[in-house]
Amino acid sequence: MDSSGRLASGIKETQVYKDIYFFDEGDGRNKKLLGGKGAGLCEMKQLGLPVPPGLIITTEVCNRFYDNGGKLPDGLMDHVREAMRKLEQMTDKKFGGSKNPLLVSVRSGAAISMPGMMDTVLDLGLNEDTLQGLVEQSGDERFAYDTYRRFIQLFGKVVLGVNDELFSRVFEEAKRKRGAKSDDELLTEGLKDVVQKFKRLVHEQTGELFPSDPYLQLEKAIAAVFRSWNGKRCVDYRREFKITPDLANGTAANIVTMVFGNLAGDSLTGVVFTRDPATGEKRLYGDYLTNAQGEDVVAGVRTPKPIDKLRQEMPAGYETLLQISDKLERHFKEPQDLEFTVEGGKLYMLQTRNAKMNAEALVRTSVEMVKEGILTREESILRIKPDDLEQLLHRRIDPKAQPKKIASGINASPGATFGKVVFDADEAERRGRTGQKVILVREETKPEDIHGFFAAQGILTNRGGKTSHAAVVARGMGKPCVVGCSDIRISGGQFSVGQIVVNEGDIITIDGTNGSVYLGEIPTIDPEPTPELTELLQWADEFRRLGVRANADTPEGAQLARKLGAEGIGLCRTERMFNATDRLPIVVDMILADTKEERMRALDKLLLLQKRDFKEILKAMQGHPVTIRLLDPPLHEFLPSAEQLRERLKALPARGEDAAELSTIQKMLEKVKALSEVNPMLGHRGVRVGLTYPEIYEMQVEAIFEATAELIQDGVKPEPQIMVPQVAMREELIPVKQIVDKVRKQVEEKFRFEISIMFGTMIEVVRACVCADRIAELADFFSFGTNDLTQGTFSFSREDAENKFLPFYIDAGILTENPFQTLDANGVGRLMEIAVQLGRKIKPQLEIGICGEHGGDPKSIELCNHLNLTYVSCSPYRIPLARLAAAHASLRPN
Amino acid sequence: MDSSGRLASGIKETQVYKDIYFFDEGDGRNKKLLGGKGAGLCEMKQLGLPVPPGLIITTEVCNRFYDNGGKLPDGLMDHVREAMRKLEQMTDKKFGGSKNPLLVSVRSGAAISMPGMMDTVLDLGLNEDTLQGLVEQSGDERFAYDTYRRFIQLFGKVVLGVNDELFSRVFEEAKRKRGAKSDDELLTEGLKDVVQKFKRLVHEQTGELFPSDPYLQLEKAIAAVFRSWNGKRCVDYRREFKITPDLANGTAANIVTMVFGNLAGDSLTGVVFTRDPATGEKRLYGDYLTNAQGEDVVAGVRTPKPIDKLRQEMPAGYETLLQISDKLERHFKEPQDLEFTVEGGKLYMLQTRNAKMNAEALVRTSVEMVKEGILTREESILRIKPDDLEQLLHRRIDPKAQPKKIASGINASPGATFGKVVFDADEAERRGRTGQKVILVREETKPEDIHGFFAAQGILTNRGGKTSHAAVVARGMGKPCVVGCSDIRISGGQFSVGQIVVNEGDIITIDGTNGSVYLGEIPTIDPEPTPELTELLQWADEFRRLGVRANADTPEGAQLARKLGAEGIGLCRTERMFNATDRLPIVVDMILADTKEERMRALDKLLLLQKRDFKEILKAMQGHPVTIRLLDPPLHEFLPSAEQLRERLKALPARGEDAAELSTIQKMLEKVKALSEVNPMLGHRGVRVGLTYPEIYEMQVEAIFEATAELIQDGVKPEPQIMVPQVAMREELIPVKQIVDKVRKQVEEKFRFEISIMFGTMIEVVRACVCADRIAELADFFSFGTNDLTQGTFSFSREDAENKFLPFYIDAGILTENPFQTLDANGVGRLMEIAVQLGRKIKPQLEIGICGEHGGDPKSIELCNHLNLTYVSCSPYRIPLARLAAAHASLRPN
Repeated sequence: MDSSGRLASGIKETQVYKDIYFFDEGDGRNKKLLGGKGAGLCEMKQLGLPVPPGLIITTEVCNRFYDNGGKLPDGLMDHVREAMRKLEQMTDKKFGGSKNPLLVSVRSGAAISMPGMMDTVLDLGLNEDTLQGLVEQSGDERFAYDTYRRFIQLFGKVVLGVNDELFSRVFEEAKRKRGAKSDDELLTEGLKDVVQKFKRLVHEQTGELFPSDPYLQLEKAIAAVFRSWNGKRCVDYRREFKITPDLANGTAANIVTMVFGNLAGDSLTGVVFTRDPATGEKRLYGDYLTNAQGEDVVAGVRTPKPIDKLRQEMPAGYETLLQISDKLERHFKEPQDLEFTVEGGKLYMLQTRNAKMNAEALVRTSVEMVKEGILTREESILRIKPDDLEQLLHRRIDPKAQPKKIASGINASPGATFGKVVFDADEAERRGRTGQKVILVREETKPEDIHGFFAAQGILTNRGGKTSHAAVVARGMGKPCVVGCSDIRISGGQFSVGQIVVNEGDIITIDGTNGSVYLGEIPTIDPEPTPELTELLQWADEFRRLGVRANADTPEGAQLARKLGAEGIGLCRTERMFNATDRLPIVVDMILADTKEERMRALDKLLLLQKRDFKEILKAMQGHPVTIRLLDPPLHEFLPSAEQLRERLKALPARGEDAAELSTIQKMLEKVKALSEVNPMLGHRGVRVGLTYPEIYEMQVEAIFEATAELIQDGVKPEPQIMVPQVAMREELIPVKQIVDKVRKQVEEKFRFEISIMFGTMIEVVRACVCADRIAELADFFSFGTNDLTQGTFSFSREDAENKFLPFYIDAGILTENPFQTLDANGVGRLMEIAVQLGRKIKPQLEIGICGEHGGDPKSIELCNHLNLTYVSCSPYRIPLARLAAAHASLRPN
Repeated sequence: MDSSGRLASGIKETQVYKDIYFFDEGDGRNKKLLGGKGAGLCEMKQLGLPVPPGLIITTEVCNRFYDNGGKLPDGLMDHVREAMRKLEQMTDKKFGGSKNPLLVSVRSGAAISMPGMMDTVLDLGLNEDTLQGLVEQSGDERFAYDTYRRFIQLFGKVVLGVNDELFSRVFEEAKRKRGAKSDDELLTEGLKDVVQKFKRLVHEQTGELFPSDPYLQLEKAIAAVFRSWNGKRCVDYRREFKITPDLANGTAANIVTMVFGNLAGDSLTGVVFTRDPATGEKRLYGDYLTNAQGEDVVAGVRTPKPIDKLRQEMPAGYETLLQISDKLERHFKEPQDLEFTVEGGKLYMLQTRNAKMNAEALVRTSVEMVKEGILTREESILRIKPDDLEQLLHRRIDPKAQPKKIASGINASPGATFGKVVFDADEAERRGRTGQKVILVREETKPEDIHGFFAAQGILTNRGGKTSHAAVVARGMGKPCVVGCSDIRISGGQFSVGQIVVNEGDIITIDGTNGSVYLGEIPTIDPEPTPELTELLQWADEFRRLGVRANADTPEGAQLARKLGAEGIGLCRTERMFNATDRLPIVVDMILADTKEERMRALDKLLLLQKRDFKEILKAMQGHPVTIRLLDPPLHEFLPSAEQLRERLKALPARGEDAAELSTIQKMLEKVKALSEVNPMLGHRGVRVGLTYPEIYEMQVEAIFEATAELIQDGVKPEPQIMVPQVAMREELIPVKQIVDKVRKQVEEKFRFEISIMFGTMIEVVRACVCADRIAELADFFSFGTNDLTQGTFSFSREDAENKFLPFYIDAGILTENPFQTLDANGVGRLMEIAVQLGRKIKPQLEIGICGEHGGDPKSIELCNHLNLTYVSCSPYRIPLARLAAAHASLRPN
């Protein structure tokens, strides 16, 4: 079982279950069968918390529903009737009774929470008869009609498929007609009118009368909840969050006795987190609405009151909530996200689930819950998915920019970002697909906007609080979000703040950390790790076996990497140094050189510059290894493209005053043509260039040795390693090793001391994997280049595949993941295994790392740990993630 | 030991040898130590044949010569002196004696024969003193001076490095001055004059007097012979023919008592093959020259008499030669290439070596020597290198062409070919490098022309016989060659035949099978296998385990493949059918289709055409499997290039009358851009196209099933196999298998009988190798595509590599062979081994083949046999070669 509760429980599939469980009998650990909501209600009930009586129709029934062609299984409704009779006994109410009627909600709930993605019906059981019973029971006619119109609208939309807009229009029209500014200003007569119009609307839209038989209502509602499991937005969500059938398969339907937050007087409904989900601070965090039903809070229709207010308005209720929070946290070992309703002064718990938090909150709660004795260190590490840390190091507004904000809202999900304003989700998706950065700006968001969230850089809403749909979803995705920004007015394809008008397509910047909105693109800067993160990662370091190094090509990158915990540089690309503006012209001279002598002149200039680069980076990392890769890209990458050169030729004056330039461009064009390749990925690059132009590698090796020697003289402890790219055979390494040995001897003679530099190779060509034993005879270390290795293994060109068939392959389930993001364990992983085994057969202590993108991917890191690599190397900002993932891999070995 | 004598003997390196062996003591099997020539002389001596007394300085001494910085090892000359004293005793002559002088030749000879590549000195030991002795001894002053002038010229050239042209000029001038038409018309006085002038020439050119001390001559000659082992042309030759140090390392120097074919009277010298090296016919074949030394025959300076003439001129000598031939053939189990000299009526054997023959002769002699009881069938198969068969199926002049020949010469090496006339080897090489086909036309060729032979399609010479340099080398290379074509006159960058003038660069056709020369390019046709080849290959079939199939896409190809012994079609490429002129427009429509419906319309048309293709090819191969590969290339290959389309756009009339065409071209251009790829080799092709456009594969599968069903109805027995290209994962095969199953069901229902078609996959992506077990769950067969597999394994793009770094890699010894020509056993072979092992773990009887170029390469076939593949598939013309190579692999398992 999974103590973190963040993954599905491991209950065996073969067990046979009942179709229906009451909250006091269901096994709360079995989320897969009962769904998260049902399981939470069972747990709470069995912990003795105030939960309205209710029952769960299992996910297993949902699956039978689909097997049965979308119909409820035979006999199910007989069981439901039996259960409802028991519920009537428990509540002392009568379902469909004209006296003291029992009303219920029918709520969806899958094993994995998908907030707002599936359907729920409230207030079910109402008809003209039971309505009178409700009036009598509550003594509040307006409440009863308000409940009835809510029921017709929700049932009409969710179960009967009537467009929600049509209901809203009728309701708004009624409010307008009677001068009601807010929903609660519409009184009984108005609501009666609305009820009749709603019924007529349903009849018009569906051709049938609104069903009045409560059991028919119930049957239809259960089927609708099951159906919503396969609704489009639900399927999209599962694909996006990789919720596969083994994690959650079907939804349960929960039938819960209604309690009413929309009664007059001491009634309210709220949503609360046991800790602040944006910061992790230990305090109740959330909102409530008096005289409202739960959906009003979540949907963000009315701006609710912050939960602190409840402490004053209802001190006893607040205190009870605090106690319940504490109990639930210690039980679940996770901060909880609670729904509650107070009906006439009495508190009922309607839901508990593990709180979705952003990474900062996850980290802080992890560290604090260890200190509170709730979690062990191992548990605190394992409860955080390494991917979550990616959003942790959020970019923030550069303080030097001192921008002027145009509006403020609620800081719902941290981080600063910019993009073009769009006002609907489809447009966001359309522009996103073409690579544009967009900010989705909405009055409020609804579950059907989910595709717009995926496409957007950030979200800005006019209404809603920290628990509104927009806030919850944005936090889940780690995207900056500002909600409840009532300063802005949205209408007709633009929004305005005072005199300022922002049109669709204009760029704005939002800062979800403090809720600010700015015009235009504001510069942002890199984040700093929090003290909690630093502490957590120190714990992770104690558990992990795998080393973590960084990819960095500059002294600044090296310093950042050290600060974030890198134990060395696993990949220092020398070609980036070639591309610097002061170098490129020399590199071009070198490439265009007609003779070896000309080439040597250019190389001599580069030697001095590269030596300085290496000195700086080796100094920044002193005492830690720095793996310097010799030149890798094909030479044509340093030249302009043929097309660019042809353009330049065209632009030259016709009369030929620029004879010198003309000749240079023509020479360059010839060289570009000579160097052009049909498949550059598989072309003249890496060690192939190093062998055909040995003077280039010789220059680089000399720069490394000289830099090392000079640093040693200065008392610094440089630890360079020389790495050869694109090696396919031992025979390619021999001449490079000869160069290294020759240069070593020269420099040692010059400086009169010994210089020891490890010599190794990338393993990024398939052939190197299967011949790794022979290569290990020459190499002191290996470093997997799994991007190239993946290309060679699949015969996929990454550039082409990701734009062409790869998305199709993933959609069609041919690939479960993009192999360029997550290592393909069965193909590439197998080759790596062969390489490790062959390499260590020759040198049992062979240092073997991985550099490149996969080195910062948690699943890939797990595989690297399994393959017994020495270290992973990734970009500096992924170092924290990699440290955590490495600890996970150790704590949860395959 | 190798009974064929075609490979180096297996004598261990560690044995310690003497420096010098006499012919009656050397072990003739140890060619590596004694060189081929020395070993042959020992064998002949020990068989009791008439060999002039002589001795061998071993190849091992040659190696010490190089270790010693190009100087003879200390003490060697003491041993030589001692041996010369023994030789004096054996011959009863005196080296350097003014009475009865002993003259010797110093001859090179490595383990592997490299005709004409190394140096030899004749008549050594002459000076003014010994000359008088020779006059006395022979009683022929002219002979003595002739011998002396030969010695000075040859020694001057070979040992002292004087330009041979200078000697020739002096000699020709002397002839001219005295009105001598041929060499033997120059009498004693003239020769005396030549000798003086030669000596002066040597003095002028070298600054030293011609050495008169015979031991000094001998010492210098031995060193020169050793030096010639590392001469440029010798090194080139060894690289071209892959003669590595383990096969031959250094040359021996043979010191042989001179016998004189240039004595007046019953003296002659000749070169003879024991069987016709061009046809294999059992008869003496060769030429001789009366009053000449051996070099005159080989160099082609004078046109010699055919050996048949000797039967009349010297019947006893001829008979002796016949007996010796027979004895040597039975001893060596190979036809021999003999050098002999008759001095005063007495026959001496100067050399025997295995005859170089063209493939036709090799095959015929193989078959006949089995019938004569000289060879076993196994020996007869193993003595032919599979590569040799490549030249066997020579193209010949199309009989329908009925061209008029302009000249005739001697048919020295068979086959018809055409090319541009060039008159020197450098020019041939220069043009050859740019891809031009050339015919090298020369008065006669010399060893220094060897680079021109490599570059030329064929060779035409004005002088020389069937054993001239040109003839021997061309036959060795399997290139068409016509020699002794005295009809043509070469001068000043052109040749003429009667009124016809052919300039450099003009195209001619030569037919080395019958010695004809034609103007222009004459059409040639494919060859037929000879009865001997058919018989030999039937023997080979009995020994081989590996199946042999052909790559063929047309009914004609299929028929040819059957005729040449293919047991099925291992690769039938369907895209070639797409490219036929009647199909391409439909294919283009299919690609440009905006909707699935438009695409389906085009596909429906293609369906009918493909069905017809398949019916024809399946019928041609009935009873044998035909593996049909579904569409493989990326779709853009069927469209014009963007550049071509832009040209077409430019060419359109400006006023827009061609709006329709304009729009089509623009649409095509857009599509071409959309389909363009950075690395097409790794792009959207093979099954990736098949999965993204399933209707294409569905059409092809339907065409295959329908064709099969209709043939079954007609009583034909089709055996199609459906093969999916570019598969990297099992998951790609699943949807294709579903298509196949669906179509199978449809067609079975339509025809009302069961249709069984094997379903399999190419293994050409690295990942497929390491996941072959999972793939074998779905595939009935595998077929390795080792071209793509090699690209993926090395990360080499073939197109790029072969033009860029691959030649450098091979020159530098980083690769010993082009991995696209010969399978890389250690890399690609290792992956194949994994695939075979994993595949057969799931299906022990899994059929596994290889298609593509490697399937026709002997070394690769050997590897395939070793890997236990089911069959190899190659182009029809390589089928005979593959059958032989497969037999070799069985007879000589790893």
